[in-house]
Amino acid sequence: MAENILEQISKTEKIPLSVIKKEITNGRCAVLKNLKRNINPVAIGNKFRCKVNINIGLSPESKDIKQEIDKLNLIIKYGADTVMDLTPSVYSNTTRKELIKNCSIPFGTVPIYTMIESQKDIKKINKTFILDSIERQCEEGVDFMTLHSAFRRTHLKYVKKRLMPVVSRGGALIARYMSITGNENPFYEYFPEIMDVLAKYSVAVSIGDGLRPGCLADATDKAQLAELYEMRELLKICRKKGVYAMVEGPGHIPLNEIEKNVSIARKATSDAPLYFLGPLVIDSAMGFDHINGAIGSAMAGYYGVSLLCAVSPSEHIGLPNLKDIKSTLEVFELVKRAVNVAKGFKDFKIREKEMSLARKNFDWLKQFELSIDPNFTEERFHELNGKKSKHCSMCGSKYCAVKNSIKAMETV
Amino acid sequence: MAENILEQISKTEKIPLSVIKKEITNGRCAVLKNLKRNINPVAIGNKFRCKVNINIGLSPESKDIKQEIDKLNLIIKYGADTVMDLTPSVYSNTTRKELIKNCSIPFGTVPIYTMIESQKDIKKINKTFILDSIERQCEEGVDFMTLHSAFRRTHLKYVKKRLMPVVSRGGALIARYMSITGNENPFYEYFPEIMDVLAKYSVAVSIGDGLRPGCLADATDKAQLAELYEMRELLKICRKKGVYAMVEGPGHIPLNEIEKNVSIARKATSDAPLYFLGPLVIDSAMGFDHINGAIGSAMAGYYGVSLLCAVSPSEHIGLPNLKDIKSTLEVFELVKRAVNVAKGFKDFKIREKEMSLARKNFDWLKQFELSIDPNFTEERFHELNGKKSKHCSMCGSKYCAVKNSIKAMETV
Repeated sequence: MAENILEQISKTEKIPLSVIKKEITNGRCAVLKNLKRNINPVAIGNKFRCKVNINIGLSPESKDIKQEIDKLNLIIKYGADTVMDLTPSVYSNTTRKELIKNCSIPFGTVPIYTMIESQKDIKKINKTFILDSIERQCEEGVDFMTLHSAFRRTHLKYVKKRLMPVVSRGGALIARYMSITGNENPFYEYFPEIMDVLAKYSVAVSIGDGLRPGCLADATDKAQLAELYEMRELLKICRKKGVYAMVEGPGHIPLNEIEKNVSIARKATSDAPLYFLGPLVIDSAMGFDHINGAIGSAMAGYYGVSLLCAVSPSEHIGLPNLKDIKSTLEVFELVKRAVNVAKGFKDFKIREKEMSLARKNFDWLKQFELSIDPNFTEERFHELNGKKSKHCSMCGSKYCAVKNSIKAMETV
Repeated sequence: MAENILEQISKTEKIPLSVIKKEITNGRCAVLKNLKRNINPVAIGNKFRCKVNINIGLSPESKDIKQEIDKLNLIIKYGADTVMDLTPSVYSNTTRKELIKNCSIPFGTVPIYTMIESQKDIKKINKTFILDSIERQCEEGVDFMTLHSAFRRTHLKYVKKRLMPVVSRGGALIARYMSITGNENPFYEYFPEIMDVLAKYSVAVSIGDGLRPGCLADATDKAQLAELYEMRELLKICRKKGVYAMVEGPGHIPLNEIEKNVSIARKATSDAPLYFLGPLVIDSAMGFDHINGAIGSAMAGYYGVSLLCAVSPSEHIGLPNLKDIKSTLEVFELVKRAVNVAKGFKDFKIREKEMSLARKNFDWLKQFELSIDPNFTEERFHELNGKKSKHCSMCGSKYCAVKNSIKAMETV
């Protein structure tokens, strides 16, 4: 990794260069930036600020690339840290190219989706085809890739015992491949050769959790753990080949198992950067899964997950629209602030203090400015209090606790 | 407490009568039901299902009692467990009467608000006036009351050091009283006599946290802890007088201090039922404080808080409208499910399993039914997938992980 990129990270994260190098050497930091891309590098790891990823991409049933570009612009405006394109359709190549062109933050993909589209006969997916497909995406500028490489044939027996077999789209395709061909997972088999390709471009691998539990009943089960333990060996290959690696994690996990899950994953991976989807703390939050995910993510982030994959309100329902993406961004900006305050990062703590000072001083404009969505907050203030009000209608002027107590304290 | 009421609780909570009696004897359970009221009693305590309270009530600037009744009806429809009327205005007596009449769940108040309205000269608030005001509300059927009895004159010196002095409306009034009169807090001074009144009606006391931190910078500070430790002595009086007691808690607390806060409070109160507002995990979530509170509440509930006071999206902005109350109810129903699943309650776990089974079987109607807001979920499904679709547009039929993996597993 070029020295100037690490210096850039050192400046952004306000962490000494020596610490960053040590974290990288020990596999505890993934730097997201393809050598071919002109973007700011983003560091993922427990020593760094917790980050948020948002997924976009067409569904197999949609063609509206413009909507995905609108989503991307919103994502960049709201300050999400990374974005993944999950398009699994005949449009996946064109969508990806269009999105990368417009994307100033690290851009991730799940290459198996495109492979399945360009090679309709799943049985014909072989080593050359895989390496070529991946190199093509590296050439295009993809910064990180999810590869479900740790899901092996031997794990299928554990899937049999599940309530929900496989809920990972990539994982299910791997399961289909293994059951149809009788072969081992090719992303496992050719992992060293794939890493050679990624190393050339400094593209990071995100080892996908094809066996993440899809319901509370399957949380922390044998299938999930078997795949996690398999990742250990893959991470050794990444370190040997000089490829940045992240480890993906569950899924649906009840509140009481989140700390344990993060701790098991940290131990199993020697503190590799963890990238969790959720966890979702209940199964039944349809329509409110962004909040479900926010609760799990806040806890997971605090316990040591470095990249939070935002969950949208339309998870389990359908492809998120632009409004869903906006809600997702707002909620996960909140989570990011909460986690980074808890992790003790000064820049995050200062904003909270400034907000409280503005609150104490009844400086509403400053409060709007520091809030998650300034325009929205200002609109809500006027909606609830009228256009000309200088105080909030909850307590009015007479019962305002802050005002009353400031006055009371003058004589103490 | 009449035996039949305890039997009713035993049936609802599916917990043996002997356990309930033991929890009550040890001050670890508060039963909310005024003897004069014909409602189902609700048990609050760490051994019982975690519950949710919602606040309503006019602001000093509003007169729209109808809107508050609409809120109450929504609250009952959504299955919140308790409700508090926080009206601090000339309409507080009429509002309370109107609301109690329409309320089939435990109903709480903060009597100091009404006292301040009927006795404009704060200096004239004396023992007789306090006892009469409280007895009047007991007669009317109030089931539980917040009294900021543990905030003492000696604590004012700690408030001086705060960024945000007092953010509790009741707490600020007590501060004003103490600073104007030079007297001790009368709710502390006459606490035994007040408990005699509550005991007559089996009305529970909720010992208010007038000194809850109003920003992260003040979290777990001397003011907060001094008030908490003062509660210990008051709880002894409650136990002696046979009055059910809950203990209110913070406030604004960063993620990393929530477990510690719950643990300190549990220890200080010998596991008295805890009733927390939030905690809010950041200060800057204006417009999204329901989600801010949901994150803190989920953690606090899991660590042992028994009654979660829901925070609305308009906290720090203004009086919540009907739409805000709906959002609050949805989010806190989610939190309640998550906490009670984590606490291991079977009825809560079964619903999640049923939801996952319905998901596996593509039984959309059942999924809508089990979701938090069935009508809303169904509308969203149609909005994102079209009226006639049988699958979700995220993956379509071809890439559906559940479908693909079920098929793959047939041959394993």
